[in-house]
Amino acid sequence: MGRAKPQPSEGSITAGSDFLHLDVAEAPSGGRAAWLAERLRAAIADGRIAVGARLPASRVLATDLGVSRGVVTEAYQRLGEEGRVAGHGRAGTVVVAAPPLPPARPVPAAVPVPATLFPPDPGSDIFDAVRTAPARIDLTPGVPDLAAFPRADWLRAERAVLRRLAASDFGYGDPCGAPALRAAVATWLARNRGIAVEPAEVIVTAGVSQALGLLAQALRRDGVDRIAVEEPGSLGVRQHLNNWGMATPPVTVDAAGLRVDELIATGARAVMLTPAHQFPTGVVLDGERRRRLIAWARDGGLIVEDDYDAEHRYDRPPVPALRGLLPEHVGYAGSVSKLLAPALRVGWLLVPARHRDAVVAAKRNADLGTSVLPQLVLAELMTSGALERQLRLLRRRHVRRRDAMVAAIGRHLPGATVHGASAGLHLLVTLDGDVPDTALAAAALERGVKVQPLSWHCQRASRPGLVLGYAANTATDIEEGIATIAAALRRPRTS
Amino acid sequence: MGRAKPQPSEGSITAGSDFLHLDVAEAPSGGRAAWLAERLRAAIADGRIAVGARLPASRVLATDLGVSRGVVTEAYQRLGEEGRVAGHGRAGTVVVAAPPLPPARPVPAAVPVPATLFPPDPGSDIFDAVRTAPARIDLTPGVPDLAAFPRADWLRAERAVLRRLAASDFGYGDPCGAPALRAAVATWLARNRGIAVEPAEVIVTAGVSQALGLLAQALRRDGVDRIAVEEPGSLGVRQHLNNWGMATPPVTVDAAGLRVDELIATGARAVMLTPAHQFPTGVVLDGERRRRLIAWARDGGLIVEDDYDAEHRYDRPPVPALRGLLPEHVGYAGSVSKLLAPALRVGWLLVPARHRDAVVAAKRNADLGTSVLPQLVLAELMTSGALERQLRLLRRRHVRRRDAMVAAIGRHLPGATVHGASAGLHLLVTLDGDVPDTALAAAALERGVKVQPLSWHCQRASRPGLVLGYAANTATDIEEGIATIAAALRRPRTS
Repeated sequence: MGRAKPQPSEGSITAGSDFLHLDVAEAPSGGRAAWLAERLRAAIADGRIAVGARLPASRVLATDLGVSRGVVTEAYQRLGEEGRVAGHGRAGTVVVAAPPLPPARPVPAAVPVPATLFPPDPGSDIFDAVRTAPARIDLTPGVPDLAAFPRADWLRAERAVLRRLAASDFGYGDPCGAPALRAAVATWLARNRGIAVEPAEVIVTAGVSQALGLLAQALRRDGVDRIAVEEPGSLGVRQHLNNWGMATPPVTVDAAGLRVDELIATGARAVMLTPAHQFPTGVVLDGERRRRLIAWARDGGLIVEDDYDAEHRYDRPPVPALRGLLPEHVGYAGSVSKLLAPALRVGWLLVPARHRDAVVAAKRNADLGTSVLPQLVLAELMTSGALERQLRLLRRRHVRRRDAMVAAIGRHLPGATVHGASAGLHLLVTLDGDVPDTALAAAALERGVKVQPLSWHCQRASRPGLVLGYAANTATDIEEGIATIAAALRRPRTS
Repeated sequence: MGRAKPQPSEGSITAGSDFLHLDVAEAPSGGRAAWLAERLRAAIADGRIAVGARLPASRVLATDLGVSRGVVTEAYQRLGEEGRVAGHGRAGTVVVAAPPLPPARPVPAAVPVPATLFPPDPGSDIFDAVRTAPARIDLTPGVPDLAAFPRADWLRAERAVLRRLAASDFGYGDPCGAPALRAAVATWLARNRGIAVEPAEVIVTAGVSQALGLLAQALRRDGVDRIAVEEPGSLGVRQHLNNWGMATPPVTVDAAGLRVDELIATGARAVMLTPAHQFPTGVVLDGERRRRLIAWARDGGLIVEDDYDAEHRYDRPPVPALRGLLPEHVGYAGSVSKLLAPALRVGWLLVPARHRDAVVAAKRNADLGTSVLPQLVLAELMTSGALERQLRLLRRRHVRRRDAMVAAIGRHLPGATVHGASAGLHLLVTLDGDVPDTALAAAALERGVKVQPLSWHCQRASRPGLVLGYAANTATDIEEGIATIAAALRRPRTS
């Protein structure tokens, strides 16, 4: 390392036996792909390989190193899944990002987990607290493969948008959103979710979270102060509705979906549910329950449908949205958080006509409308077909990761039961025994693996379980994450 | 026009006497620049000159047409101010946008203005209603020169951001905003507004509007249900506070600023004001009033400082923000709506420590945080110096337009008094006589010119007046707009 090396020029890298001074003799036998990936990762992180540089063709590098081509392609694929490189067809494999190296993987026992991080009854800042806790493997549910974010498509669409935008489009706009995105969402919902809606009915929101808040405000004005929720059901959604002044009576979800008889017994005039892939159980609302729920809504009930990951179905076409059948009885919310990235904070809301004015007023009061550039770029991605391509890519990648997680659970957690693995970005495992799942989650985090306890998503006592996201993690991390959970389960309290 | 013409190739245009088949003999004498600008405008709109194409050098085109070079440069400058072309130094003048041609300027009498569009007591949807009303000249206050939006800088910064972003940055983030922007805002406020603040204290919001809503929610939790406001003072702000459950007792603004004695008499525990350039009068809070206001705040009052256009001062350095003196007694809100574009919906909020947790919770409930890409691009523009360059460019352009408006008022509205023209993006004219300003605004809009009546921004009876934005309009449109208002004033009711 003592001598000066030529800087690689952007756009290409000279292959050859000198490439990064790699010496395959350093590699552990049987671990050559991992070794090569690690060397490349370090070179990207410290700038020896610049962003924009092309890696040597796999055949060339394999010959130079004296390894099989499969070793090189596997290493490149790992870096691709991590978002460090991208395949550009004939242009080869190009470095797209240089994330800083993690500061050497923390030794498990060295990670202090505050005893309060997994309380049985968490407050509304819990997700912020958990998010900032350090972990080397994050199995928090609800995010897609973020490394797959289509950076090049996004930038190309942004360039097109900036070129054609009129100056007046930079001014204050319609609080309900940019016309181009409302039209694109209407088309998207018709094609993908069986919902017929006019663009003018689409209200662009800062994600599903804001959509639910706006609807809750409108319902409060209408005298509604309770929205029944699924049990188990999303803690985040429940907290959010509570914050907007809504009580959230629980209604059991069983293998057929929401118990409509229990819903009727609560007397609530509105219910919030995730019929396409229930969070966290993954149950699909079955035909009989659907019919009973529709009858309840026709009798004057309001269904709030959170269609949060309906597009991510692996076994069959997604079930049509309830909104498509019952537009005047369903408030419908969706977003790109599971299609592209939560950080975009763009979603949409459809509401029955009678709530429309109050919801629009609430949106105006919230922020005068969502930021226009992400809206227009998204509209461009929807109309150009780039978003459908992205969804197909995610589905293929997610299903592989789902398989990896199911297999890892089979190996390491043989006593666990897997639920809801045929769709979505996460699965649920329930566990035998009486270890509180909050203690298990804390023990896993002490070992560097972040998961959510099922009990957080329950208002009543529940079996212990974990909600495990697989979409944002590589197969390697999933394997290690599940093995770590198994180790934590064998010895839940280390301190 | 009967013969086929070669298509211009992107990136360059062949100059020469054939360029667009221009014939200067068509031009009215004395109006050659306007004629040339109009021909270029039409050619850009119908695609004969493509976006990205370079216009002929002014010297070349002037020679070819047989006109002075000044005619060509004036035409190019008009197109530049309209946002259709941009100067690229040695690269020449390039077409950057092809906004559709307005469908031939409407004949004044043909624009129906609903009688209800300028009611004396407008509801919260008034700004949406006025925004969608057609007009050929829009003098609505509160927007900067939108044609100056730095599209190329933005795209360049976005490319840099997308390149270096880690995959995890696309996930759920801190509801208070991206660390990079919070740091950039802290530096910006220190440099430009004399405010010392830690990045961790900065809360990124969707503009000032959301910032005020968040603070209002926090104050409500603290038992505060009234915020005194300036009289006259922004209608939009007052409506917004009312919508968040706040009463808004009025406190007179005179030539020295807010009457602190009146504020004390209201008994309100909080006051919202625009001390650097009062909206809509343009008054600067003077030294004596500042001292009395500070004493009131130290006695337990909360100042809510909307620093909405402090950077746009033409006569002297801006007055320092109150926040800089009194951090524990001032909530401070700012945004890029007046620096770049309202459509970005990005702003910032600083609050006293005791309100911080409640404001952060309100932000989380609002939207889980502002969209991350616009935040990071903005941070890049702030740290690279591009935003300061933009501000200097805007100041130069705005001051010319301010001068054009003051001159036009002198010519066409000799009886009017101009207020607050030494800073900002708008000025106020008050008028003699007893024509209600709402009727005048309606009559102006019938003639195609959009303005805001002063009485909207008053809770008590006021002299008639108009709030006139100049920043987003060319000198030509400003001249025509003021002449049209004068015509409307002579005959306020046409129907």
